[in-house]
Amino acid sequence: MNTFGTRLKFTSFGESHGKALGCVIDGIPAGIKFDENFLQNELELRKPGKNKFLSPRKENDEVEILSGVFQGYTTGTPISAVVFNKDARSKDYEELKDVFRLSHADFTYFYKYGIHDYRGGGRSSARESINKVIAGAIAAMLLKEFDIEVFSGICSIGTKNIDFKNIDFEFCKTSEIFCLDPNYEEEFKKELLNVKKAKDSIGASVYTCVKNVPIGLGEVLYDKLDSKLAHALMGINGVKAVEIGSGVKASHMRGSSYNDILKDKKFLSNNSGGILGGISNGSLIEIKTHFKPTPSIFIPQESMDKKGNNVRYILKGRHDPCIAIRGSVVVNAMVRFILADLLLLNASSRLDYLKKIYTF
Amino acid sequence: MNTFGTRLKFTSFGESHGKALGCVIDGIPAGIKFDENFLQNELELRKPGKNKFLSPRKENDEVEILSGVFQGYTTGTPISAVVFNKDARSKDYEELKDVFRLSHADFTYFYKYGIHDYRGGGRSSARESINKVIAGAIAAMLLKEFDIEVFSGICSIGTKNIDFKNIDFEFCKTSEIFCLDPNYEEEFKKELLNVKKAKDSIGASVYTCVKNVPIGLGEVLYDKLDSKLAHALMGINGVKAVEIGSGVKASHMRGSSYNDILKDKKFLSNNSGGILGGISNGSLIEIKTHFKPTPSIFIPQESMDKKGNNVRYILKGRHDPCIAIRGSVVVNAMVRFILADLLLLNASSRLDYLKKIYTF
Amino acid sequence: MNTFGTRLKFTSFGESHGKALGCVIDGIPAGIKFDENFLQNELELRKPGKNKFLSPRKENDEVEILSGVFQGYTTGTPISAVVFNKDARSKDYEELKDVFRLSHADFTYFYKYGIHDYRGGGRSSARESINKVIAGAIAAMLLKEFDIEVFSGICSIGTKNIDFKNIDFEFCKTSEIFCLDPNYEEEFKKELLNVKKAKDSIGASVYTCVKNVPIGLGEVLYDKLDSKLAHALMGINGVKAVEIGSGVKASHMRGSSYNDILKDKKFLSNNSGGILGGISNGSLIEIKTHFKPTPSIFIPQESMDKKGNNVRYILKGRHDPCIAIRGSVVVNAMVRFILADLLLLNASSRLDYLKKIYTF
Amino acid sequence: MNTFGTRLKFTSFGESHGKALGCVIDGIPAGIKFDENFLQNELELRKPGKNKFLSPRKENDEVEILSGVFQGYTTGTPISAVVFNKDARSKDYEELKDVFRLSHADFTYFYKYGIHDYRGGGRSSARESINKVIAGAIAAMLLKEFDIEVFSGICSIGTKNIDFKNIDFEFCKTSEIFCLDPNYEEEFKKELLNVKKAKDSIGASVYTCVKNVPIGLGEVLYDKLDSKLAHALMGINGVKAVEIGSGVKASHMRGSSYNDILKDKKFLSNNSGGILGGISNGSLIEIKTHFKPTPSIFIPQESMDKKGNNVRYILKGRHDPCIAIRGSVVVNAMVRFILADLLLLNASSRLDYLKKIYTF
Repeated sequence: MNTFGTRLKFTSFGESHGKALGCVIDGIPAGIKFDENFLQNELELRKPGKNKFLSPRKENDEVEILSGVFQGYTTGTPISAVVFNKDARSKDYEELKDVFRLSHADFTYFYKYGIHDYRGGGRSSARESINKVIAGAIAAMLLKEFDIEVFSGICSIGTKNIDFKNIDFEFCKTSEIFCLDPNYEEEFKKELLNVKKAKDSIGASVYTCVKNVPIGLGEVLYDKLDSKLAHALMGINGVKAVEIGSGVKASHMRGSSYNDILKDKKFLSNNSGGILGGISNGSLIEIKTHFKPTPSIFIPQESMDKKGNNVRYILKGRHDPCIAIRGSVVVNAMVRFILADLLLLNASSRLDYLKKIYTF
Repeated sequence: MNTFGTRLKFTSFGESHGKALGCVIDGIPAGIKFDENFLQNELELRKPGKNKFLSPRKENDEVEILSGVFQGYTTGTPISAVVFNKDARSKDYEELKDVFRLSHADFTYFYKYGIHDYRGGGRSSARESINKVIAGAIAAMLLKEFDIEVFSGICSIGTKNIDFKNIDFEFCKTSEIFCLDPNYEEEFKKELLNVKKAKDSIGASVYTCVKNVPIGLGEVLYDKLDSKLAHALMGINGVKAVEIGSGVKASHMRGSSYNDILKDKKFLSNNSGGILGGISNGSLIEIKTHFKPTPSIFIPQESMDKKGNNVRYILKGRHDPCIAIRGSVVVNAMVRFILADLLLLNASSRLDYLKKIYTF
Repeated sequence: MNTFGTRLKFTSFGESHGKALGCVIDGIPAGIKFDENFLQNELELRKPGKNKFLSPRKENDEVEILSGVFQGYTTGTPISAVVFNKDARSKDYEELKDVFRLSHADFTYFYKYGIHDYRGGGRSSARESINKVIAGAIAAMLLKEFDIEVFSGICSIGTKNIDFKNIDFEFCKTSEIFCLDPNYEEEFKKELLNVKKAKDSIGASVYTCVKNVPIGLGEVLYDKLDSKLAHALMGINGVKAVEIGSGVKASHMRGSSYNDILKDKKFLSNNSGGILGGISNGSLIEIKTHFKPTPSIFIPQESMDKKGNNVRYILKGRHDPCIAIRGSVVVNAMVRFILADLLLLNASSRLDYLKKIYTF
Repeated sequence: MNTFGTRLKFTSFGESHGKALGCVIDGIPAGIKFDENFLQNELELRKPGKNKFLSPRKENDEVEILSGVFQGYTTGTPISAVVFNKDARSKDYEELKDVFRLSHADFTYFYKYGIHDYRGGGRSSARESINKVIAGAIAAMLLKEFDIEVFSGICSIGTKNIDFKNIDFEFCKTSEIFCLDPNYEEEFKKELLNVKKAKDSIGASVYTCVKNVPIGLGEVLYDKLDSKLAHALMGINGVKAVEIGSGVKASHMRGSSYNDILKDKKFLSNNSGGILGGISNGSLIEIKTHFKPTPSIFIPQESMDKKGNNVRYILKGRHDPCIAIRGSVVVNAMVRFILADLLLLNASSRLDYLKKIYTF
C-alpha cells in the first residue's frame, strides 16, 4: 500500500511533523554511478521557502543515504534514504486539531483509521512527495545511462495557458515557478501574487515530455505505460486529472484526424502521446497533469469538527498558493520512476534479450 | 502484468481470434450468492452486433464458469470464467497482416516482442475487455451485499455534451448507445450515423457515478482510490484522459470556490468527486473517462509495413464507430472491481474491525 | 493467493470434481518454441491410473492451450492452459460429505470458509498439482534454451533409503515408481505392495538435482533461491519437510567439516546444495522433499462430522498408496518454475546486462 | 525482493557495516498500543556481546521509530524503524576483502552483482536479521491482542538433542543459550565451549511452538501457512532445513499411524504440526528449523580470491560459535510476522466477516 513499482519498487514512510520521511528503493541494478549531488539538487527543486511563490516553510531537506551504495556505485541491494524534519511547527496545527480542514484528508483519515496525526496533515501531507522525488532522482541515474530525459513544467495557471509554441525546458529549470514558456512567466507570476494577496490559492497544470524512450516500454495488459503513469500522477496530492497525448481533446475528434500517420518510419503527429496499446512507440511521451488549487487558504471557511459540530475556522501554517509549481517536480520524478521500472521489466520480455545476457 | 488488484485480483488471458478469452478472479470472499444470469447479462451489455451503432461482429459471448462456485455460492477459492471465440474472421486480417494499422498496437507489439498475433489485434484487441466485464460483474455481487451501486453512461460524443441536468441512469441502461440523458440521445445517434456514413469514427466521454460508498475506501499512499481508478480506466483501450470530480476544471479554479464546504455533516458540493487524500469521503464518487475515436476507419490511410515500407491501406473487419459506447460498460466494470478490492483491503485496517471478527 | 512467482507468475484454478482445472502463466518471454508434446508428456508422468502403484482414477488429463502461443512460438502474452475433468466420481464422496477425513483439509476449509466443496477434496485436492506440472513444463521450455536441467526421483520409501551411490536419472524416468536407483526399485515396489495389501499408505522422500545453473540466480533478501524452493515445495500436498544441501545433517556438523572448500575455481563438496546467501553458486542444486503418507487409507478410522459428533468411517474413492511418487513430478515442476522465474529476475540486476540489451 | 509479506509487509534495508539497518512495516492496523520497550527488549534478545556463547561484537542496537506511531498508538500508516551501526570494525575485513570466505555469500554476491560490499558481509550479513526481529516484534503487538503466543528455543546442538519431555519456555527465555530444557543446558554449554576452544563452530536446531492460533489462518493455494513459514525460515541466514509437525519423520510412517485422530472435537496427536491443507487447524503450530554451523571459524581454510587464485586464509572478526542461538530469536520473529499477516488476510475471506465490520 505504501510501495510503488513492479520490478523497481519504492516504499515510502513518514509524516509531515514526525521525526523523518524516507524511502527504500529496491531493484536498482548494480553498477550505476551514484550521484548524491544530483539527488540533493532534485530535492532543492522541490523545496519550499525559496521564493515568494512558494510556502515559506524552511526545510533544508538534506537527504542521507543509509544503504545500497558502496564506493560510489549501486550494489544491487536496497537503497534507503532519509530526510529528517527540521522546521515542523506543530503548534500551528494544535488549535485546529479537531477541525476537518476543507479539501484535506483530515476527514477521511479520521474516519478510516479512527485516529489521525493532525500535525501538518501527518501522512497525507504533500511533504511525503520528498520520497517520490528521491525515488525519481535515483531512477534518473539509471535513465541517464540510456539518454532518456524527462522534462516537466507549468503550462497553465488558473485559466491562463501557454500556447505551446515556445517551450523552453532550459528556461523552465531556472524559472522560479517552473514556467515552460519565458513569454508567459510574468503573467503567471502576476496571477500568483494576486491570488496570494487575496489570501486564496489557485489551480494549475503541468506538461511533461519524455525524450529518447526506446520502443517497447510498457507491460501488457495491466502494467501499461499509460496506466502506470495515470496511477502515479493521480496519486500525487491535489491532482484531479491526467491526460495522455491529446487527452480530453481526443474525445472530440474523428478517427480520420486523430490517427497518427506513420511515414518514412516516423509518426507525423503525436495524438497518441507516444503510447500505443500501453507500450512506448518511440515518439515523445506527452502528458498533462492537472492540479486543484491548494486547499489551505487564509480566508475564513466553514467546516465540521470531530464531534460533528459546524465550525468556522481560519488557517495558520505555511502553504503554497499553487501546489502545481512544486508539484511539477513530483510529476517529473514519478514519470522517471515508471520509465526506469518498465525498462527493467522489458529486459526479460524476449528470449533474444536473455540470450544476449546469458551467453557471454 | 496481466493481473489487476491488490486483495481482490483478476488475471486475464486470451486473444481476439484465439480459442478463448477468460480470467481468474482470486480473493472473492466465501458465501456470496453467485448470480450467473446477472453475469451473462453484463456481458450482453458489452456485446457487439446488437444494433447499428456497434460493430456488427456477432458473438454470443457465453460465459462458462469453471471453478470457485459450489451449490450456488462462492467458496473462497478462485473463480475462473471462460468465453470461447465463435465468430472470429481471421481472413479479414490476413491481407493486412504486415501493415501496422494506425493508432493500433500492431506497431508496438511487433517491436516489443518481435512477434505479433495480427489476427484482430491479438492480445491488444478491445475484445479482452470481456474479462474486465466478468471481473466487474463478480465484484458487483459483493458490492450488492453492501448496497454500493455503480452507474456509467455516455455524456458526450465528439463536441456534443449533455448538460448534466437530466441524468437518468434507468434510461441509460436501456438506451442503445447508453446515453445518460434522454433529451440528447437523438442528437448523439444522428452524429454517430453521420460518422458511420463518412466511414469515419468519433471520440466520446463516459461519466461514472457511485452511490453508497462507505467512508474509508482507499489505501494510502500508493493504493489510493483515485490512483487505482486512474490506473484501471487509463488501461482500457482507447482511453486518453481520466478526471476525478471537477477534474481538469479544478486546475482553473481558486481554492475559495473549489473547496467543498462541510456543513451539518454533509459536503455541500463535490469538486473532490467523493475522494479526499485517496480515500472515499461518503459523497458520490464521480469520474469522467475520455475515449479517442475508434482507430479502425474505412477511409484509405497511410502507414508502414513490417519491412519499413510506406503503404496505403483500406481496412476490412468489423468495427464500432465509437468505442466509448461499449467502453462505458467496461469503465463501469473496472470501477466496481476497484471498490470491491478496497472494501476487502479496508477490512483489516483497524484493530477494532479485527476484534469484531475474531471474538465471536 | 492463488498466484505463484515474481517475474514469471502462474495463477491456478480448479477443483478436483469441478468442470476443469487450469492455469495462466504470465511473463514467459516471447520467442520460445512451444512444445505441446513435451507439455502433454509431463502431464502423463503425473497422471494416475497407469500402474498398480498409483491411484486407479483414469484421467486423460489432456491439456488445451487457450492463449499466448502463435505459429508455434510464445508471444509474450499470458499462456492459459485448461484440463477438463473426465472421470470424477463425486458419488464416492457423497456418503462422507459431512465427515472430516483425517489428515485432509476438509476440517480447515470448512471452518475457514463456512462452505466446502467436499467432492474429492475440492480445491485442496492433489489434483490441483496438474497446474503446477503445466507451469513447470512451460518453464522448462525456457530453461532448455540455457541447458538447465532438473531431475527428481524417489530416494526413500518409509524407512528404506537408497545409498546415493548409483543414481540413474535416465532409469528413474522410466521406472514405474520414479525410483532413482535401479538396485532399490524392487525393494521399494515390494514395500508399496505390502502397504497396499494392508489397506494402508506410506511416506517417502524425493531427491532433486539441478544441473547447469548459472551463478547468480536468487534475489536477495526475500526472494532467495532457497526461500522460494522451500515455499513452493512445502506447499505441495503432503510435504512436511524440505532440506537444501546437507539439510538437517548440517545442524549436526562442525564448521570445519561443513564448509565447502573452493579450489581451482571449483567447490570440492556441496553441503550448501549449490546455494550461498540465497544465490546459486554454480554447483548442483540439491534438495530433499519429504512427503507424509497418503491420508486416505482403507482401514476404518475415527473422526468428527460437521456437527461435532464422533464418527467412524471407511473411505471409498481411489487413492495412491504413496503420494510422493507422483509428487516427485510436481516437485520437479516447481523447481523448474522457480529457476525460470529467477533467470528472468536476474536479467535486470546489473547495468552491464541492460547495456547488452538496449544498445544493439 | 527485499519485501516480505502479503497483507502485512516489511521492507528491509541496510548492510552490516553501512550507516544503519532498518525496515518499513506496512499494513499494521490502526489502534494498536505501541510498546517500544517490548520492541527494544526483543532486540536485546538477539543482540551479540552479552555472554561468552555469542559473538563479542558490542552493539547497543537501539531502535529509533521514525513514523507510523502517534500518541502511543499505531495510525495505520507505515512504521519505520532504524538501528544505526556503532561498533562496525571494517578494518577486520579489509585484509581479506578479495577472499571469498567459505560458506559465505561473498562468492555469489560478487558474481551476481559484479560488486560486493565486503565489510562484514555487507547485505548478506546475519546482522540484517535485526530487521526481522523488529518486524516480528511489531507483529507480536497485534498477536497479543488475540492471545496468540509464539515460543522458540534450542532443541539440539550438534548431535545432542533434548528429549522434548521437559520443555520450559519460561526457562528458555532466561537461558543464555535459549535452551528449551533446563536439564540439557549444561551439556549444551559444554559442547559450545569445546567448539569455541577448537576455534570451530557447530550447527544446531530450533523448535518453535505457537499457542492459541485460531482455525483458518493460511490462504490457499500459494499463501499457505506452511509455505510461508518455510519461505521465511529457509531465508534466515544459515538455515538448511525446515520441518512442520513430524517433518522428515512423516516420510517414514504409514498413514494408519500418521493420521491425527479427531475425537471429542480435539485432535489426539499433532503429526500435522497444526496445519491441514495449509490452514491452521487450532492445534499447536510446531516447527523445527535447522541451522548449519557458523561459516566463520578461526582455523586456517582454503578458498579462492577474486582473481581466481587459490588462497589460504585465517579469519579475523567477531563471530558466534553457533548461529542458531541468536537465530532462534529470528525464527520466532518471522513466525510471528507470518501469523499476523495471515490474521489480516483472513479477515476478508468470508462475507459474514465483512458484514460484521460494515454494518455497525
